[in-house]
Amino acid sequence: MNKLAVVALGGNALQRDNQRGTIEEQEKNTFKTLENLVFLLKDNYNLVITHGNGPQVGDLLQRNDAGEQMYGIPQMPLDVCVAGTQGEIGYMIERILRNALNKHGIHKNVISLITQVVVDRKGKAFSNPVKRIGRSYSPEMAAKLQQEKGWAFKEEVKSGGGLRRVVASPQPMEVLNNSVIRRLVEEGNIVLATGGGGIPVYIDAKGNYRPVEAVIDKDMASSLLAVNIKADEFYILTDVPYVYLNYKKPDQRIAEFITRDEARNYLKMGMFGEGTMAPKMEAALYFIENGGSKSVITEATKLENKKFGSCITMH
Amino acid sequence: MNKLAVVALGGNALQRDNQRGTIEEQEKNTFKTLENLVFLLKDNYNLVITHGNGPQVGDLLQRNDAGEQMYGIPQMPLDVCVAGTQGEIGYMIERILRNALNKHGIHKNVISLITQVVVDRKGKAFSNPVKRIGRSYSPEMAAKLQQEKGWAFKEEVKSGGGLRRVVASPQPMEVLNNSVIRRLVEEGNIVLATGGGGIPVYIDAKGNYRPVEAVIDKDMASSLLAVNIKADEFYILTDVPYVYLNYKKPDQRIAEFITRDEARNYLKMGMFGEGTMAPKMEAALYFIENGGSKSVITEATKLENKKFGSCITMH
Repeated sequence: MNKLAVVALGGNALQRDNQRGTIEEQEKNTFKTLENLVFLLKDNYNLVITHGNGPQVGDLLQRNDAGEQMYGIPQMPLDVCVAGTQGEIGYMIERILRNALNKHGIHKNVISLITQVVVDRKGKAFSNPVKRIGRSYSPEMAAKLQQEKGWAFKEEVKSGGGLRRVVASPQPMEVLNNSVIRRLVEEGNIVLATGGGGIPVYIDAKGNYRPVEAVIDKDMASSLLAVNIKADEFYILTDVPYVYLNYKKPDQRIAEFITRDEARNYLKMGMFGEGTMAPKMEAALYFIENGGSKSVITEATKLENKKFGSCITMH
Repeated sequence: MNKLAVVALGGNALQRDNQRGTIEEQEKNTFKTLENLVFLLKDNYNLVITHGNGPQVGDLLQRNDAGEQMYGIPQMPLDVCVAGTQGEIGYMIERILRNALNKHGIHKNVISLITQVVVDRKGKAFSNPVKRIGRSYSPEMAAKLQQEKGWAFKEEVKSGGGLRRVVASPQPMEVLNNSVIRRLVEEGNIVLATGGGGIPVYIDAKGNYRPVEAVIDKDMASSLLAVNIKADEFYILTDVPYVYLNYKKPDQRIAEFITRDEARNYLKMGMFGEGTMAPKMEAALYFIENGGSKSVITEATKLENKKFGSCITMH
């Protein structure tokens, strides 16, 4: 029986920080990244692909802001913007993956689903939202938006300063349609799902799905999906080939094999960057602590030779 | 065995011309429209739902324009914008349909696919593009955009004047993943697909899928999908309850049952509005001329009582 792998593509698999984000750049990056997945397909893996949307949703939020200012077009809430980026990016990945498969003579359906993810609306993420989104505002403008739209703001910690809108980054609870995704992928179809961490919704007292303006960590949503569909392996593709210990310090070293206990220990020691490797490691651990056999954190280009990349397992 | 119906929702099922297009307005319109589909479900139909995107893609094009002007964010090409609206609208329909089903105690999966549609790249639609999109420009600005981006322009015929970008509205040839859609819907799942007429692509000499900036008529794409998946019935939901003969003339009358020959004759006489009822009738005819048993053109609210609406059949 084929193994089932969930592969999470980092935002930079599609759009690089040092690029403007034109469609030509995105398509070129995407083809390069996706060609590496062919190694898994040739190894008879069944694949679910998920992806980030950081740069794209940032651009879309700014377009919404500009459209309202210049033409009076109402802004869409964040959940709708995430959905929009699932459409854009899902289309791009599906089309380009079809071409990568064509180049390598592989015949498979590629199916892109718009995916909602139920979040924990009562969780502590909502009492102190910290995820910065959209552009940076002056204190006056932020005060106005706070009043008009009920947005919350925090100071921008990086370059530029000013105030940025903050939203919750809640815990994902369930990927909707996960049973459909599982069946489609077990039949050999490649499924794209949970783009940008999924569109956040919650279930109200009457059992209805309600929208919520939040951002779900895409690695955590992907890990949950991998658990939901009982995947065998979970790959987080990012911009470094390995997990490093003492990253960027004189005694930096590669961690090629990491057990659950070691990883928990490293996390407690603050070994991994807060907004970078730490959440990836948490997502990798969530998978193996909930029935997955191994998580891999690596660069897309390392898939060719399975000796490379960092492998996180229970023992 | 359950009947299979494809239901195409008009743009105004979601966003009305006399509204600003806020998310609250769109969600309310959508719930009302979708509740009418419950009558088909209670009648044991399997359903594929498609939808337009006119107002939404118009807004998105303007946001793209404003984002470039205000913040220098590169504009996305039209195919990517269509994909973005599939994400936005597909999410909204899926979430709200789940709630409408919940209200009526119906348990079904609702699955939204991002859908590409292969178009006839060599067809005559590309030699004289006529579909107006986006905002209207001054002659100077249009000349600049023509040079910079290669856009084609025509005069705006409606209110406001100026020049508007024109793109081709090509014939759809194949809805990608139609076999997957057919199987999912035959199993009782509700599938949303081919939003906004589908994302237009063409197949190049090497068999690769290439993007193309065009707009596919959503009724024609929906009709093609209905043929591709061998649907029994095809519903076009619009803003009038019937097809009318001599529409808005003193001798206007309802056409409740129309045969293929009658419809072809009326089309030849110019009985139906060029940008409005004529393409809907062409889409309805395409379905019944390619194996479908009946097409219906009506308003969503008329689904409750199947006596209403205009029914187009072969004989």
